[in-house]
Amino acid sequence: MSTQEAFRIEYDTFGELKVPSDKYYGAQTVRSTMNFKIGGVSERMPVQVIRAFGILKRAAAEVNQDYGLDPKIANAIVKAANEVAEGKLNDHFPLVVWQTGSGTQTNMNVNEVISNRAIEIMGGKLGSKNPVHPNDHVNKSQSSNDTFPTAMHIAAAQEVNEVLLPGLKKLQNALEAKSKEFSQIIKIGRTHTQDAVPLTLGQEFSGYVQQIKYGVARIESTMPRVYQLAAGGTAVGTGLNTRIGFAEKVAAKVSELTGLPFVTAPNKFEALAAHDALVELSGAMNTVACSLMKIANDIRFLGSGPRSGLGELILPENEPGSSIMPGKVNPTQCEAVTMVAAQVMGNHVAVTVGGSNGHFELNVFKPMMIKNVLNSARLLGDVCVSFTDNCVVGIQANTDRINKLMSESLMLVTALNPHIGYDKAAKIAKTAHKEGTTLKEAAIKLGFLTSDQFDQWVKPKDMLGPQ
Amino acid sequence: MSTQEAFRIEYDTFGELKVPSDKYYGAQTVRSTMNFKIGGVSERMPVQVIRAFGILKRAAAEVNQDYGLDPKIANAIVKAANEVAEGKLNDHFPLVVWQTGSGTQTNMNVNEVISNRAIEIMGGKLGSKNPVHPNDHVNKSQSSNDTFPTAMHIAAAQEVNEVLLPGLKKLQNALEAKSKEFSQIIKIGRTHTQDAVPLTLGQEFSGYVQQIKYGVARIESTMPRVYQLAAGGTAVGTGLNTRIGFAEKVAAKVSELTGLPFVTAPNKFEALAAHDALVELSGAMNTVACSLMKIANDIRFLGSGPRSGLGELILPENEPGSSIMPGKVNPTQCEAVTMVAAQVMGNHVAVTVGGSNGHFELNVFKPMMIKNVLNSARLLGDVCVSFTDNCVVGIQANTDRINKLMSESLMLVTALNPHIGYDKAAKIAKTAHKEGTTLKEAAIKLGFLTSDQFDQWVKPKDMLGPQ
Amino acid sequence: MSTQEAFRIEYDTFGELKVPSDKYYGAQTVRSTMNFKIGGVSERMPVQVIRAFGILKRAAAEVNQDYGLDPKIANAIVKAANEVAEGKLNDHFPLVVWQTGSGTQTNMNVNEVISNRAIEIMGGKLGSKNPVHPNDHVNKSQSSNDTFPTAMHIAAAQEVNEVLLPGLKKLQNALEAKSKEFSQIIKIGRTHTQDAVPLTLGQEFSGYVQQIKYGVARIESTMPRVYQLAAGGTAVGTGLNTRIGFAEKVAAKVSELTGLPFVTAPNKFEALAAHDALVELSGAMNTVACSLMKIANDIRFLGSGPRSGLGELILPENEPGSSIMPGKVNPTQCEAVTMVAAQVMGNHVAVTVGGSNGHFELNVFKPMMIKNVLNSARLLGDVCVSFTDNCVVGIQANTDRINKLMSESLMLVTALNPHIGYDKAAKIAKTAHKEGTTLKEAAIKLGFLTSDQFDQWVKPKDMLGPQ
Amino acid sequence: MSTQEAFRIEYDTFGELKVPSDKYYGAQTVRSTMNFKIGGVSERMPVQVIRAFGILKRAAAEVNQDYGLDPKIANAIVKAANEVAEGKLNDHFPLVVWQTGSGTQTNMNVNEVISNRAIEIMGGKLGSKNPVHPNDHVNKSQSSNDTFPTAMHIAAAQEVNEVLLPGLKKLQNALEAKSKEFSQIIKIGRTHTQDAVPLTLGQEFSGYVQQIKYGVARIESTMPRVYQLAAGGTAVGTGLNTRIGFAEKVAAKVSELTGLPFVTAPNKFEALAAHDALVELSGAMNTVACSLMKIANDIRFLGSGPRSGLGELILPENEPGSSIMPGKVNPTQCEAVTMVAAQVMGNHVAVTVGGSNGHFELNVFKPMMIKNVLNSARLLGDVCVSFTDNCVVGIQANTDRINKLMSESLMLVTALNPHIGYDKAAKIAKTAHKEGTTLKEAAIKLGFLTSDQFDQWVKPKDMLGPQ
Repeated sequence: MSTQEAFRIEYDTFGELKVPSDKYYGAQTVRSTMNFKIGGVSERMPVQVIRAFGILKRAAAEVNQDYGLDPKIANAIVKAANEVAEGKLNDHFPLVVWQTGSGTQTNMNVNEVISNRAIEIMGGKLGSKNPVHPNDHVNKSQSSNDTFPTAMHIAAAQEVNEVLLPGLKKLQNALEAKSKEFSQIIKIGRTHTQDAVPLTLGQEFSGYVQQIKYGVARIESTMPRVYQLAAGGTAVGTGLNTRIGFAEKVAAKVSELTGLPFVTAPNKFEALAAHDALVELSGAMNTVACSLMKIANDIRFLGSGPRSGLGELILPENEPGSSIMPGKVNPTQCEAVTMVAAQVMGNHVAVTVGGSNGHFELNVFKPMMIKNVLNSARLLGDVCVSFTDNCVVGIQANTDRINKLMSESLMLVTALNPHIGYDKAAKIAKTAHKEGTTLKEAAIKLGFLTSDQFDQWVKPKDMLGPQ
Repeated sequence: MSTQEAFRIEYDTFGELKVPSDKYYGAQTVRSTMNFKIGGVSERMPVQVIRAFGILKRAAAEVNQDYGLDPKIANAIVKAANEVAEGKLNDHFPLVVWQTGSGTQTNMNVNEVISNRAIEIMGGKLGSKNPVHPNDHVNKSQSSNDTFPTAMHIAAAQEVNEVLLPGLKKLQNALEAKSKEFSQIIKIGRTHTQDAVPLTLGQEFSGYVQQIKYGVARIESTMPRVYQLAAGGTAVGTGLNTRIGFAEKVAAKVSELTGLPFVTAPNKFEALAAHDALVELSGAMNTVACSLMKIANDIRFLGSGPRSGLGELILPENEPGSSIMPGKVNPTQCEAVTMVAAQVMGNHVAVTVGGSNGHFELNVFKPMMIKNVLNSARLLGDVCVSFTDNCVVGIQANTDRINKLMSESLMLVTALNPHIGYDKAAKIAKTAHKEGTTLKEAAIKLGFLTSDQFDQWVKPKDMLGPQ
Repeated sequence: MSTQEAFRIEYDTFGELKVPSDKYYGAQTVRSTMNFKIGGVSERMPVQVIRAFGILKRAAAEVNQDYGLDPKIANAIVKAANEVAEGKLNDHFPLVVWQTGSGTQTNMNVNEVISNRAIEIMGGKLGSKNPVHPNDHVNKSQSSNDTFPTAMHIAAAQEVNEVLLPGLKKLQNALEAKSKEFSQIIKIGRTHTQDAVPLTLGQEFSGYVQQIKYGVARIESTMPRVYQLAAGGTAVGTGLNTRIGFAEKVAAKVSELTGLPFVTAPNKFEALAAHDALVELSGAMNTVACSLMKIANDIRFLGSGPRSGLGELILPENEPGSSIMPGKVNPTQCEAVTMVAAQVMGNHVAVTVGGSNGHFELNVFKPMMIKNVLNSARLLGDVCVSFTDNCVVGIQANTDRINKLMSESLMLVTALNPHIGYDKAAKIAKTAHKEGTTLKEAAIKLGFLTSDQFDQWVKPKDMLGPQ
Repeated sequence: MSTQEAFRIEYDTFGELKVPSDKYYGAQTVRSTMNFKIGGVSERMPVQVIRAFGILKRAAAEVNQDYGLDPKIANAIVKAANEVAEGKLNDHFPLVVWQTGSGTQTNMNVNEVISNRAIEIMGGKLGSKNPVHPNDHVNKSQSSNDTFPTAMHIAAAQEVNEVLLPGLKKLQNALEAKSKEFSQIIKIGRTHTQDAVPLTLGQEFSGYVQQIKYGVARIESTMPRVYQLAAGGTAVGTGLNTRIGFAEKVAAKVSELTGLPFVTAPNKFEALAAHDALVELSGAMNTVACSLMKIANDIRFLGSGPRSGLGELILPENEPGSSIMPGKVNPTQCEAVTMVAAQVMGNHVAVTVGGSNGHFELNVFKPMMIKNVLNSARLLGDVCVSFTDNCVVGIQANTDRINKLMSESLMLVTALNPHIGYDKAAKIAKTAHKEGTTLKEAAIKLGFLTSDQFDQWVKPKDMLGPQ
């Protein structure tokens, strides 16, 4: 690519514009950077979307060749699109999310980059639109209105499969290992944050395992609809300017290129005008966020201390905890988890509001929606890995503390219900609480049962399941 | 039940209290009314929860009998519980949602009402706890911590099956009928709220059909986890004070009584400490709310007018529309739909916040969560029926208007892309727009094609699908 | 009112309808009950809105009399409207929130009830619209589009002033009294839920006081815009069919009747088409909800135990805590507070979605928005009172426990920073933690300072403020 | 700074770590990058926070010098901190938002960068902590727990004043100019999206002006609490290890350096443990988002067409609108606005969830909260500028279309209410609608009034205000 001159001239239907000569993008991209100065670099279209577009454009070119597109042009497009898919041309995608709500300008950015790169490959002149035209060739049989949602689904599905689900499964496995490791440690339960009857630490962790396991199931149950691609719907869902079979073939190609079970959407009108599938996926991630918030809160409270907290868990010490309190260690991984959870809940509302506001044949909150969905998937997946590696696998039970708390608990009295009834058992607990004695002392003093009966009936290890 | 005296005396572990003599509830219920004066009558625990408790208490009594509960007592409990399940004793449940977060007081309200009613059936004295004790008999093998979430799931599943899904399916069918009825009406498409290429009105409605159809699928995909019951977990999930098999038998009984496929939750710790299943269900309803918002918005805009709107649809006139503007008719059903949609989105956030804040062995946002889930299910189901009956089935196409708009559209130019390329087609459209002429006039004037070519290439009915 | 016949016939512009003869409402109300079977009795228009309408209709009648309305008719309307304002006719308002989004049907319900009651007062025949016509007289110079938002603002302002602010101030005072009571109790601080440097319990509570105090300020700072009334804008904000001065006079009357500083909205177009003022108020309540969630969480964790929690606070025991665990006492008031907080956050999203979706001259999410605003105000106000009376005023400090935890804390080491530097102080804390010794023992062992120096530098009571 | 070696060795209380030799940060920063691999570069701590830290650290050093800090060290810190404040060292802040919830690691990142840069200035060795120690000198009298919230408030206040408020005011002015420009254009009003009585286009825009004007007021009304700084509270709010007067002096310095009216927070416990002030600010931005959503929706619908929409406004054409439909122009600025609005609503929920989850002496959702607040402020401010420059200032009224729609409207009949009553007027409108005639024709045919009366009573220009 020539860098001798700083700029070259390109044009769109609105006129001419200067384009940096070291960039593959063209006039419409430049125009968008002028019209949408919103938020700066950190608000750029996620690279996952750009890469998904690379996959889609390659697939479309191959299918278009089947329908008669000049093989030389098709090959050049495929090659250029592949570079986009591999992330090699990321620097050529300067547009922010806050552009047209259909993502038209990003689609054109992709068309321009691929056409110019393909022109270059074929020995042509950048910006000439010859022999590879961004609209007539790269965008052939396509519209922003169907390509952008297609890229959304490809990007979302890949992020879910490459980041989110592996992260969740890793965490699930780590929690499961801990649940087994802790299966013999009997501890006090807590309900309403107050002392309750005992369970094992392993049982407690088994609840977390179940939450994450179901989280995986929840995400997976939404994917059939995410695997449906809008490609082939073109401008309004009818498929105008495509050929019969184009939609199905493109979906098959994308599936082949990604190894994911993409199919063509059975109803393209829905696929363009609504993004319920992403709202649904976001909802599943919102549920996962609730699970993670609960688990991370539990772990930090159970690990609170070192001397004035609950102190049942010993969490790994990863870094100095305080710039003023020497020696302080904090549950920082739990904090990252809970912050991510809050973010995912917020992202979900943004996705919901966007998803509810489509009009007629097109929803125009597309870039915002996919940004939030990808952000949630990435953050959840990453934080699961970080939490697992830097916290969960290193959690130790503070058995001395656990035993002490358990043996002092007044709620062991519950074991007496079937023997002496709820009302008498309550009197024992209240007496022990008021007088600061043990349950046994109170029980005997009140004359409700003998010492032997107490020992026989109140056994924590017999309180861990039905009989 | 005696009404000679205004009050009788009952007691709980905190002391004595006056209870209205015409009520079956007891001291703990009265105490709750004193401690939680929050929100008033409209904030009472939903009757669906009370009725679900009736089912559960009946099932538990029958299973307890298998495990040795005196059949006379069991029978009386079953009879009383049945009356609760049938809604006959609704007046005896005065407690509001804003009570203890485990729903303990509502569980005790149920226990007290059933025990007193069972005592009455057996000829005993109300408030005597004899021969049927609210804790020792009615609550046998149970805790608020497992019964309340069980009642939550029963109530949610019933509302989904009895109100939400039938409502959605009714709407789906009505939209599908309209989609078929309108299958030959070619109209202008609109993207970005701007004129676009044509589609049929039937195709437009088919997108709505797909949204609702998927909405049904979304709701249904969450139900396997809603059908899991916590019963048998008792206080912390271990099943303390229950018998082996109790949990499974209770779930089977509930399934039998309701005709829904309830099973015992495989992990009771998760079932008490988290309510992810309800967050998930709420998320599915949130997605449905997005769909309905979109559809209702479209219909009211397409029906806007009568003279200054889009005017493509004629909506049924159901009532006078304005107290000041005579003769005005408004899309009021659409308005009810969109208001419900907004409410469901809000309810979903409340459910999410509650679901994320469980601690240790118990989530204590239970009454709030189920209130919102039931509210969303009911409102969505009801509004689908209302929308269908009072709007959708009566929608007519304003074919004159539709034809006029379609034939004038500049976006028919898109059909020329494959013939003359995007850039020339754009010039035709822009010229026609600026000069106020037809596309054909502009095309010929610009010399890009002949009159015959235009007629041959620009045919709306050829623009409705791939070729 | 005659109850001899079950029904009378009334008509609207759509035709005749049977009206229950013991009700004052008319045909449009009946029609709405037929068209909007959504949600049932618990979803009725809040009575606060109905009562606010009574105030408005009275004010409008008095002003209309100034502009020429027959004094006999005006007087009858005033009398009837007053009965509505006093809540005497609540049974005559059967409509649900889920109706037309402008609240037209509730405005007509009010017009019908007042006109029929006024007719009755004047000796006329119910349903005759003579001598008092619901539109021409009761609704004179009004439209649903300006009366409903006026009633929204009146109702919201009253609920804020009568329930929300008094509740918040009561709680603020109770927390302030506790802050003073606890001013000399030195306790361990906790950051990241982990042990930190000391503060007094009074200081800790002073943070809560500040939150609530600012909460009051936040609510109050939104009220200027809530005190602006739409009345006088009629159908689209222009004031068509009103007289110059009508708007100002009605606002003055409403102000006089309510004792609140209502004024006429300076821009009626904004007042009809947007309800930003209610979104803003809801946002302030959302902030208060965050404050309450934080405070209630703190109090329940600080009061956790009785033996295995933090145990620094002793919370009042208000009711039996468990149906299975005898003697258990739970922080149930905190749970009601946090459930309400979650609900308010959800309500806020519903209000936000509704507020964002107005179109052209009218927002049609009015009934939904006011329902949620009133619900938030009522629940927050009520729960503050309940929390204060049943929890806060009875909180006791568990000084033995507090002293024990404080004296054992490793974070007292922070006091050594200015003397020996952060790095050495950190070594002391880590050594004591690992070896289970006191800070002093570790410090001396490490040779960083003498016993005397330790005693002189590490004094909790010197760590409570700057020096 | 030496770049001869790739790495140097630094240490923290956890041990040694390799630090890139071309970076000023130290061991704790490196450790954080290892422990928190979450989200990647786009998730870095916002530069506004880093720059705010520069301001704070400079202020603290100057005040510390007053209290005895070696002037040479203080000067070096001031110089280095200034470089941070000016954004010159942005490359030295690699940490992501998803770290410890107190922002401790970012505070240490700042301390490390400033100490190493100050060491360099003084001729010392990077990483030696000598003569400028990151904790003992740069962080003197400070804790992460008070510095991070201080930086949050500084950053938020600056973004509000530099981006958000200027953006809103610019938009307000542009809308106001349009409101005046359009003051004589009478057009049809629309309520319920249906035809209603007329108003001027200027009146319609005046509603938008009022919304934005109130938006400014809403933001400003929250700022007094944002201007309160936590600095001086140190670890838990007591101000341990600071000197009397430090807090006030630091706030005064920050105020001087920024030109904004910062003061020290009256209660530091609240300032560390809660971030209600940011929830409140976010709530105000959420209200502004609702306003913008409404305005942008109106403008795109009023500008819909070119031939099949409402067509009352002509929006500027900024770019090609479609990759498939030639000549299409879309309301892309409106789309950016509404996407931003949805994002801000989502951000607000994230902030709310974070704000509600503080525990004891510290809220640990700080980085997440400020990220979202800054994002909302920036996006809203930027999009207002973009919307103003690229859309609002160029909006033209399509007066031919406006006149045509207005003159055909049936709702002009409302002007007849005072003359012939609501019921007769309704009949006229309904007749004209059914028969497709004008109102006048229908009125005369029905015999309700004469032609002259009609002309006298039905004058759109007399319908624009009270009489």
